[in-house]
Amino acid sequence: MWVRNAWYVAGWSHELEPGKVAARLVIEQPLALYRKTDGEVVVLEDRCCHRFAPLSMGRVEQDDLRCMYHGLKFAPDGRCVEIPGQKLIPQSAFVRRYPAVERGGWIWVWMGEEALAQPASIPDSVRLDDPAYRMRSSQMDYAAHYLLIDDNLLDLSHLSFAHEKTLGLDMPQWADERPRILPLERGLRVQRWLRGQPARSFMKRWGEALDLWNSYDFLFPGIFLLRTAFYPAGTAERCKLAAPAEAPLFLRYDDQAVTPMSHRTSRYFYAAGARSADIDPDRLDRLFATVEAAFNEDKAIIEAQQKLIDLDPARRMLPTSLDAGPTQFRRLVQTLLERDGEPGPAAAARAG
Amino acid sequence: MWVRNAWYVAGWSHELEPGKVAARLVIEQPLALYRKTDGEVVVLEDRCCHRFAPLSMGRVEQDDLRCMYHGLKFAPDGRCVEIPGQKLIPQSAFVRRYPAVERGGWIWVWMGEEALAQPASIPDSVRLDDPAYRMRSSQMDYAAHYLLIDDNLLDLSHLSFAHEKTLGLDMPQWADERPRILPLERGLRVQRWLRGQPARSFMKRWGEALDLWNSYDFLFPGIFLLRTAFYPAGTAERCKLAAPAEAPLFLRYDDQAVTPMSHRTSRYFYAAGARSADIDPDRLDRLFATVEAAFNEDKAIIEAQQKLIDLDPARRMLPTSLDAGPTQFRRLVQTLLERDGEPGPAAAARAG
Amino acid sequence: MWVRNAWYVAGWSHELEPGKVAARLVIEQPLALYRKTDGEVVVLEDRCCHRFAPLSMGRVEQDDLRCMYHGLKFAPDGRCVEIPGQKLIPQSAFVRRYPAVERGGWIWVWMGEEALAQPASIPDSVRLDDPAYRMRSSQMDYAAHYLLIDDNLLDLSHLSFAHEKTLGLDMPQWADERPRILPLERGLRVQRWLRGQPARSFMKRWGEALDLWNSYDFLFPGIFLLRTAFYPAGTAERCKLAAPAEAPLFLRYDDQAVTPMSHRTSRYFYAAGARSADIDPDRLDRLFATVEAAFNEDKAIIEAQQKLIDLDPARRMLPTSLDAGPTQFRRLVQTLLERDGEPGPAAAARAG
Repeated sequence: MWVRNAWYVAGWSHELEPGKVAARLVIEQPLALYRKTDGEVVVLEDRCCHRFAPLSMGRVEQDDLRCMYHGLKFAPDGRCVEIPGQKLIPQSAFVRRYPAVERGGWIWVWMGEEALAQPASIPDSVRLDDPAYRMRSSQMDYAAHYLLIDDNLLDLSHLSFAHEKTLGLDMPQWADERPRILPLERGLRVQRWLRGQPARSFMKRWGEALDLWNSYDFLFPGIFLLRTAFYPAGTAERCKLAAPAEAPLFLRYDDQAVTPMSHRTSRYFYAAGARSADIDPDRLDRLFATVEAAFNEDKAIIEAQQKLIDLDPARRMLPTSLDAGPTQFRRLVQTLLERDGEPGPAAAARAG
Repeated sequence: MWVRNAWYVAGWSHELEPGKVAARLVIEQPLALYRKTDGEVVVLEDRCCHRFAPLSMGRVEQDDLRCMYHGLKFAPDGRCVEIPGQKLIPQSAFVRRYPAVERGGWIWVWMGEEALAQPASIPDSVRLDDPAYRMRSSQMDYAAHYLLIDDNLLDLSHLSFAHEKTLGLDMPQWADERPRILPLERGLRVQRWLRGQPARSFMKRWGEALDLWNSYDFLFPGIFLLRTAFYPAGTAERCKLAAPAEAPLFLRYDDQAVTPMSHRTSRYFYAAGARSADIDPDRLDRLFATVEAAFNEDKAIIEAQQKLIDLDPARRMLPTSLDAGPTQFRRLVQTLLERDGEPGPAAAARAG
Repeated sequence: MWVRNAWYVAGWSHELEPGKVAARLVIEQPLALYRKTDGEVVVLEDRCCHRFAPLSMGRVEQDDLRCMYHGLKFAPDGRCVEIPGQKLIPQSAFVRRYPAVERGGWIWVWMGEEALAQPASIPDSVRLDDPAYRMRSSQMDYAAHYLLIDDNLLDLSHLSFAHEKTLGLDMPQWADERPRILPLERGLRVQRWLRGQPARSFMKRWGEALDLWNSYDFLFPGIFLLRTAFYPAGTAERCKLAAPAEAPLFLRYDDQAVTPMSHRTSRYFYAAGARSADIDPDRLDRLFATVEAAFNEDKAIIEAQQKLIDLDPARRMLPTSLDAGPTQFRRLVQTLLERDGEPGPAAAARAG
C-alpha cells in the first residue's frame, strides 16, 4: 500500500529543537526525531522494543534516547545500550533507525531499505533560513489520502474555480488551457504560459497585464517546487510559448511537500516567498494570507471529496482532458509500488 | 438494506433559499438541492462525476449547477453541459438526478427508479406558510437507526413514562389502554380515545377534564400526521368510542417526518400548531417548548437504546402487547424491502 | 475474551446514592446499580428486555426498578413484575441480575455463573468511611486494555523513570533491583525492601534516609493492595531482607482496582492514605496530589502504548528481567480464561 523506498518530509528543520523529541507518523510508521549533540538529526522507530511505550515521550541523553517508561536507553543507531538492573542486553533489543537528512528547510526520512537510501536524490528547495530569500511557511493536516492532495497540485486548472476569489482571481486561463507535462525520474514537470494576466497592484508598474511562466517539478510522494516568473505582456508569444531565457521581472517561489501519515491523514507543508531583494515583509504577509486562504479552500473540497469516495469506494471517476497530470502521476506511483513489491491498486486513494 | 422506491423528506421548503445549494444525505445517498430560476427544486447526486467533489460546494448558474473544483457544469437533468477547456463532453458525464416535489412544507425526494415516482402518493401535511395555520417547526439529528424512531412514534404508550413530566403529564391512560390500528397502503392508522384527561390551563374554560380523539396516519419511512381533537368529557362514550363526527373544541396538528441518513444517523423533522384562529403565538410558543422538551427525552432514550443494541446485536427483543404498531410496521418495511429486491433482515434496525 | 467468573469493582460505595440508578459497563456488560430501601445494592442488566432501553434511565420504586421508556417494572431479582396495560407477564420477561457485595469501600459485582459467586473470596481493603483511617479516593478512565494497566502495577520499576519527578523522585532502586514475587490463588504477592531512601520532609525526624518495606497483593482483575512500611535505615539488613516483624514508623495504604469496561476502555479506582493517627488532612492532600500527578503520567504513557500496539498488533514485545510480574500474571489470566472456557489469547491486551 505504501511506497517504502522513498524520502519523505518528516517536518521543518526549525520544528526540531535540540534536547527535544518530536513524534511523527509517516506511512503509518511512528517516528521519534531528535538531535545529537552535534545537531545531526536521528530518527528512530517511536516504539520501545520492550513494552511499546513511545520513545518520543522519552529523554535525550547526550546522543542517546531513553525510554521513560522503564528506562531502556537507545543509541542513535537504534541499539539498546542499557536496561536498568540488567547486565545482559539481548541482540534483539533494538528499535529501527531510519536514515535522515536535513535539506532545504526540511527533515527528510528514508522509509525503505537502508542500503538504498540516496540523499543525492533529494530535490533542492529553499532553506527558510537562507538570507537570500524571504519565505513564510506553515503546514496543515488533512483528513484525506495524500494522493487526493497530489491530484490537486497536479491539475492547477482548479485555480479558476476552487480559488476564483484567491489565487485564481480573474484567471480563467488556468482551466481553459492545458500545461505541457514532461516525465521526470520520480515525478512530472508541469509548465505553461499564462498570457496577459491582470497584474496584482504591486506589479502594475510593469503594466496592466503580464505574462506568467509557471513551472514546477512534482516529485513523489508530493514534493511541489513551483517557480512563477512574471514577464511583460507579449513575452510568451515572443518566446513562441517555449521556456523563457531572459530574467523575469519578479520570481516567486513556492515549495511544498505532502506527507502521508495514514490512509486518511496527511500533512501538508508549504512555504511561499521570493528573493529577499524582490519582496518586503509586508507584501510577503499579504501574499501568504492569500496562499493560506486558498489552501483552506483546497482542504475543504478535498476532505469532502474523500468522504464521498469512502461513501462508495467502488465508483469510478470520469476521466477528462484536465487529468493528464494526476493520471500520469498515479501510474508512476503504481510503478513505484510494484518496484517495492507492494500490491498497489491502480487507484490508491480509493482503495487505500 | 434500504427501501429505494419511496418518497423521503429531504428538508423543509423554507430551508432551501434561491441561489443556494443544500447538502443532504438520504439512505446513504449524498444529495445536492437547489432551485431553478422559476423556483422549482432540483435534486442531483452530490458528487461530481469527474473527481467526486461535492456539487453542494458548487455554484448555481441560472438553472444549472457548477462544480467549483474543476468547473464542470450540470443541467437540472443531471447531464454535464460544460467541461472547461474541452469541447467534447462524453455521454458518461452526468450525475444522477432524483425526482423532487414540494408538498406541505417539505421537499420530498424519490430515491428509487424514476419511472415509478408518483407524486400523488405523497400524503398531505400542513404548509408552514399557509395563513390558515399557525405552526412552529424544527428538526433534530439522531445517532440512531430510523426504525427506532418509528417504533417510538408507533407506540405512544411511552408518553406515560418517557414524557411523564412533559407530553404525558398525568396521563397513565397512554400506557394502560391500547389504540386501534388499521392497515394503510404504506403504513398504519392509529386511533384512540383518551377519556377524562386533565385539561391544560387554557382549556379549563371547557371543563376540568376533556376527552381527546387521537388519530394519526404513520407512513413509510416515518411520516407521522397526528390530529388531536379535544371534546367535552363524555363525548367518547357518547360516540361509543368510535371516531367523532362533531367538530372539536380544539384541534391540534402535529406533522413529523423521519428520514434515514445512514444506518446510525437519522433526521427528525417536526411541526406543531393549530388553525390560526385556535391558537395565539404565545400559547404556540409554550406548546412548542413542551414538544421540544419531550423530543429531547425521546432522543436521549433512543440513542441509548441504539448503543445497547449495538453492544449485543444478536439479542432478541421481548414482544409485549404494547408493540402491535411497531411490529406491524416492521413487517411492512420488510415487504417493501423485498419488493425492492433488497435482502432486508426482519429486524432492520438491529442488523442495519 | 473475558474472565466471567470473577468479582469486579463496579464503583465506590459512596457513588451510589439511595433512590438513584448508576450505569456501569463491566467486561462489555451494561449494568444498572441501585439500592433497595434497606440500602442493599442491586445490580441488574442495564437493558430492558422489552425494547433495550437502559434501566439506568429508569426510576427506583421501593425495591424495584422501572424502565422509563414503556414502564416495565423489575424486581431486585431481575424478574419483570409489571407491564403497563397487560395482565400476563411472560416468563421470558426478565433481565439478568448480578450478585453484588459491598466490601471495603467498593461495590463488587460477580460477572459469571451465579452459583459460583463466593463473597468470601473478595479481598480486604480499607473502608473509606472507617474512622480509623484517613484516605482520599478518586478514579480515572483509561482508553486502554486493562492488562496494560495491570502490567504497570505489576512492575514498579517504572517509578524510577515514568515518575522520576513524582512518586519515584531520587529512587533509582525501583529499577535497579528486582522484587520477590510469590504466587497467590488468583494473583501475585510482590515484596521488596527499598534501602536507604531519602526521607520526605515530614519523615526527616526519623533520619535523612529510611528503609521501606513495600508489599502488595495483586489480584485478578487488577486489585492492588499496597502497604508501604517505613523503618529506620538499617532495618532491612537487620531483617536479612526478609519481611519485618516489628512495627513501622509509618504505614501507608494504597488500595486500587482496575476494571475492564471494554477492550479499549478501563476504569481505575484508587485510594491512598494512612491510619488517622498517622496522617493529618493537609499532609494527605499533599500526598494525594503527588499520587494523582503520577497516575496521570501513567495514563499518558499507557494510552500511547495502546495506540502503538494497535498500529501493529502482530508485533511481539521484548521480554526483560523487569517483566517477571506482568508475565506471571498474564499466564494466570490465560488460565482463568481457559477455566471459563474462553479462547483467551496469550496476549489479551494485544489481541483484545
